[in-house]
Amino acid sequence: MAVRPGPTTRVPLRLVDGDQAVTRRDVVATEEPMEIRLAVGAARRRLAVTMRTPGADFELAAGFLYSEGVVTPDRIARIAYCTDADLDAEQRYNVVTVTLYGDQLPELATLERHFTTSSACGVCGKSSLDGLHLHGAQPAAPGPDVDARVLGGLPDALRAGQRLFTATGGLHAAGLFTADGERVCVREDVGRHNAVDKVIGWALLSGRLPLHGHILMVSGRASYEIMQKALVAGVPVVCAVSAPSSLAVNLANEFGMTLVGFLRGRRFNVYADRGRIRLLTPAAS
Amino acid sequence: MAVRPGPTTRVPLRLVDGDQAVTRRDVVATEEPMEIRLAVGAARRRLAVTMRTPGADFELAAGFLYSEGVVTPDRIARIAYCTDADLDAEQRYNVVTVTLYGDQLPELATLERHFTTSSACGVCGKSSLDGLHLHGAQPAAPGPDVDARVLGGLPDALRAGQRLFTATGGLHAAGLFTADGERVCVREDVGRHNAVDKVIGWALLSGRLPLHGHILMVSGRASYEIMQKALVAGVPVVCAVSAPSSLAVNLANEFGMTLVGFLRGRRFNVYADRGRIRLLTPAAS
Repeated sequence: MAVRPGPTTRVPLRLVDGDQAVTRRDVVATEEPMEIRLAVGAARRRLAVTMRTPGADFELAAGFLYSEGVVTPDRIARIAYCTDADLDAEQRYNVVTVTLYGDQLPELATLERHFTTSSACGVCGKSSLDGLHLHGAQPAAPGPDVDARVLGGLPDALRAGQRLFTATGGLHAAGLFTADGERVCVREDVGRHNAVDKVIGWALLSGRLPLHGHILMVSGRASYEIMQKALVAGVPVVCAVSAPSSLAVNLANEFGMTLVGFLRGRRFNVYADRGRIRLLTPAAS
Repeated sequence: MAVRPGPTTRVPLRLVDGDQAVTRRDVVATEEPMEIRLAVGAARRRLAVTMRTPGADFELAAGFLYSEGVVTPDRIARIAYCTDADLDAEQRYNVVTVTLYGDQLPELATLERHFTTSSACGVCGKSSLDGLHLHGAQPAAPGPDVDARVLGGLPDALRAGQRLFTATGGLHAAGLFTADGERVCVREDVGRHNAVDKVIGWALLSGRLPLHGHILMVSGRASYEIMQKALVAGVPVVCAVSAPSSLAVNLANEFGMTLVGFLRGRRFNVYADRGRIRLLTPAAS
């Protein structure tokens, strides 16, 4: 019987406070490698290994393949943990096989462009924005209108869904919200991109793509990769608790996305808008 | 004349506070792709593209190659920006070529094991700790003795060295300290691993490896990869402002490293010690 790793792990520690130290047991976020394999007919290909927090593994695999442009949603036939007899029992839950419809694996060059890099930029000597154009990314669809008060409520709403963070203090989170601020899906992971991939994979597996009209909120910073994944999934509005990078701002402007940073309540920075954000109207006085 | 990207970028933004909005210019951390190429004699190989904050690019390239086990320090002959005529002028500072001594490129299988994954784990269906053993990692050397008061001072000392974070609020940092708490080197980057690679690359290029007797302090969480890179560089003590992952704790225990988390002054958690940390001695009363 394989031991399925949980999202948190109990560890002993010494809690030091000045000249005092006590021994405790505490909970840390589980980090385990997960290998993603592709299968088409009899063909098999090992695609990537990512360090992740166990849980929502199939969503992670689906979201990763889709947001990195490896497959379209309709190519995914089945996702399963590995049953290879040559794997140790405890490793089987760390290997996920995605079986595709069709009769050949996605083009190798595409795979290598994506996975010889940890950045998913993969365009040798070209700017990554050029790269996105090459990958055929479409500008964000118009809308939705988002009330500034809705944005102000997102950090608390995200935090309320971060079950594992509350226990460990050590996990990134990504949350999907409607334009009215309704929380649709929250996922957590030790890897920032994994949390986003899990949310996108959830949307894919539940038939909700593209995510027009939705808001993606991330617990940390907004980098190029976060924006790229949101763009591919059709999310027009990305909000981050912390700072954006220069390339995240560029990408938002280039593809007509809305990017909000340092969102911590009623105060926030709008780095790219496109007219989606409605400010509160001051009461007539 | 090529335009060399700086570590920060000025962007316009709207600063929203409730029903008020003002337009400002602000500074965000620059994020640009950097491609690392290897050159041996006439052979060339594109190795990886990482999203990084420009600055300390040669240290990043050297640290990455070394900490990922691709090359030993004595193989590096020269590091330079690319001069390929087919690159746009503005892209030349985003391509770094590392020329190696010897007459052949590092073994391809090793490269692929590292770069088909963003995690540098790369051991298919095996636990990553097994992987490290396979890579020939040595247990941490004994020592140093570290006074708990020294640890307590590290967060402020690191922060004092975070020049870019102060401007942007959006960068990770890694700092190298002596056992007495003297700050040796601080580097910042949008990528957490890049900040560590820059510090290790700095040590490599200034002939200071292995880093026995030193402390590595990171501004965020301690993951498997951070611990792996520290281990390869010979750093015995790793401290993090935030939480460790389960695999970081495992790795520290397995390889005799000291791992401190939630280090925010006189209070901190010791997840693995090995007798290196000396508590304050309460005054006799």
